[in-house]
Amino acid sequence: MLSIVRPVLLLDEQRVRQNISRMVNKAKHHGVAFRPHFKTHQSAEIGGWFRDFGVKKITVSSLQMAYYFAESGWKDITIAFPVNVCELNQIQDLASTVHLNLLVSSSEAADILARDIKTDTGIFIEIDTGFKRSGMDVDNIDAIEKILIRIGTNKYLRFEGFLTHTGQTYLAAGPEQIRSISAETYAQLRRLKEAFHSAYPHALISIGDTPGCSVMDDFSGIDEIRPGNFVFYDLMQLQLGACQPDEVAVAMACPVVAVYPERNEMIIYGGAIHFSKEFITIPEKGPVFGMMVYLRKEQFTEPDPDIWISKLSQEHGTVRTVPHQAAHFSVGDILYFMPVHSCLTANLMREYHTLSGEIIQTMNS
Amino acid sequence: MLSIVRPVLLLDEQRVRQNISRMVNKAKHHGVAFRPHFKTHQSAEIGGWFRDFGVKKITVSSLQMAYYFAESGWKDITIAFPVNVCELNQIQDLASTVHLNLLVSSSEAADILARDIKTDTGIFIEIDTGFKRSGMDVDNIDAIEKILIRIGTNKYLRFEGFLTHTGQTYLAAGPEQIRSISAETYAQLRRLKEAFHSAYPHALISIGDTPGCSVMDDFSGIDEIRPGNFVFYDLMQLQLGACQPDEVAVAMACPVVAVYPERNEMIIYGGAIHFSKEFITIPEKGPVFGMMVYLRKEQFTEPDPDIWISKLSQEHGTVRTVPHQAAHFSVGDILYFMPVHSCLTANLMREYHTLSGEIIQTMNS
Repeated sequence: MLSIVRPVLLLDEQRVRQNISRMVNKAKHHGVAFRPHFKTHQSAEIGGWFRDFGVKKITVSSLQMAYYFAESGWKDITIAFPVNVCELNQIQDLASTVHLNLLVSSSEAADILARDIKTDTGIFIEIDTGFKRSGMDVDNIDAIEKILIRIGTNKYLRFEGFLTHTGQTYLAAGPEQIRSISAETYAQLRRLKEAFHSAYPHALISIGDTPGCSVMDDFSGIDEIRPGNFVFYDLMQLQLGACQPDEVAVAMACPVVAVYPERNEMIIYGGAIHFSKEFITIPEKGPVFGMMVYLRKEQFTEPDPDIWISKLSQEHGTVRTVPHQAAHFSVGDILYFMPVHSCLTANLMREYHTLSGEIIQTMNS
Repeated sequence: MLSIVRPVLLLDEQRVRQNISRMVNKAKHHGVAFRPHFKTHQSAEIGGWFRDFGVKKITVSSLQMAYYFAESGWKDITIAFPVNVCELNQIQDLASTVHLNLLVSSSEAADILARDIKTDTGIFIEIDTGFKRSGMDVDNIDAIEKILIRIGTNKYLRFEGFLTHTGQTYLAAGPEQIRSISAETYAQLRRLKEAFHSAYPHALISIGDTPGCSVMDDFSGIDEIRPGNFVFYDLMQLQLGACQPDEVAVAMACPVVAVYPERNEMIIYGGAIHFSKEFITIPEKGPVFGMMVYLRKEQFTEPDPDIWISKLSQEHGTVRTVPHQAAHFSVGDILYFMPVHSCLTANLMREYHTLSGEIIQTMNS
């Protein structure tokens, strides 16, 4: 039974399992390897649910997260973040016990790894297909080739392939644009693979973004997918058209602490330290930090378009409604909100409460 | 000695003590009580530094925080957040062991407390002087009077006074505007005090915002100040003109993981889960999530105007520079960044490293 007295991140276990099942089956159907990103849930227990579907390889975003999941039995881990050379000693300790893959995102990092690594380690070269965050420019074949040659000088380094995060899809206007960005990225990666095929015939192509993995139905040339956010989805993914409302598996439960019907607002216990300050922008609403849903028949409904979080401070959330709506709520009510970005909210909340009241721990609990 | 391999929140203990000392002396000079807000540092050890300056009363923002500081010996605590009636049982447990003050921010909450509280508890009525977050409208004397009458029906409730958070000052263009907003607020509160003086001669006036407490030099009519952020300050306070660069006592240390000189950018290990997504806007830079400082002679310098964080994802920070500057940095370098909002950054980081390498825990460690 649920007993909520302060902000809690609720999780619909059935939806999570459905989301995992759907992505596992999609990967199987398209013949691509599935290496889900665990930075979204950060939980050994939820990791176990992936195991139930036969998943054996995972992605994480930090060495600490790699250690955490290695301790819960994961043996094949990619740290999908530009290798942090300050942690090389610990990286090598971990690589001596699990199959560990690192990302090389610049020629400088390649030089350091080629010089210093003395433990068998997999290497992905990170490729930038236009997001302009980290990675080698996909068109800079010369620079990529130099990295490959440099990596080849160290017998402990095992070149695995090319990896990209198509972050551009998070800025798309809808599924059609996600598809066109993804198709263009996949075409770039196929050309890259082709360019290196004779020298590196086994090089994999690994892609990662949840919007692309969710809406694409053609993965030609792709060998591995690494979505993470799909496990919970959220308001941002819903706005992008990357998921349906009944696929969003988390909601923040927040007590109402004040109601101001005269200004169509209420204050909830639930602020930036619970939701994060991520927002989406909705025409005529402005910045939206969460939208209200209802809990009906033990399921979250789709968002109520008339009730949303318009401001967040450290522990206060200001909930805005249409005229007269606020009068229906009382101090002490528990309201439910679909978070904007489930990864950041889960990281802040550090544990989940299932709809049956079970508490699920994370690496930060 | 400092040994930094991943994102760490560095703290200059000397500056923190100077910030505490300055505010303690300011309160003494103006004859106002000092009840600092501990939501910024959330640390029993840093709380101890306030004790060194004779501080005996504190402010917190949640019942959990009140419990944490009560355990480290604080006996006089105001929870400066609209009382969460879902936690009434635990609130009464705590109130039976410490002098606890709650906030009533709506008539509904007053009714519930008047009906249910059976332990001696202090009550502040929260007043809204224009921020429009929580609290009773300062001009709605009738509604405030009804709350006072309702509170008076329960012998366990002890009316302490009127409390406000002048959040408008955080939106000010500079010190002059902070002063005018504060002066106007204080005048409103003096009128309120006057209106209730004959019936409630001992009612205190308590104000809380760091910008106002930092720049004001006339606290006429004010009985208590509750600033929090001043203990560390940050980029937002610096931009507001609420502090000087040499008063900012925290900086994030982040390893460089990739350098892209051709686009004047580098990538640091340090993202939204370290800094929070709070940003300020600087003309010609756009959103700024942190600015680089240097560590010289064991002190942080003022921000370098040419190096700032322009984007944050979960663990990546994109650092933008002026042309040719990025070429001076290497993978593996440790860079230092003044955070935009030290309260949210500290809450995420959950511990501090002093410049001499000592680790300081918080309630979330």
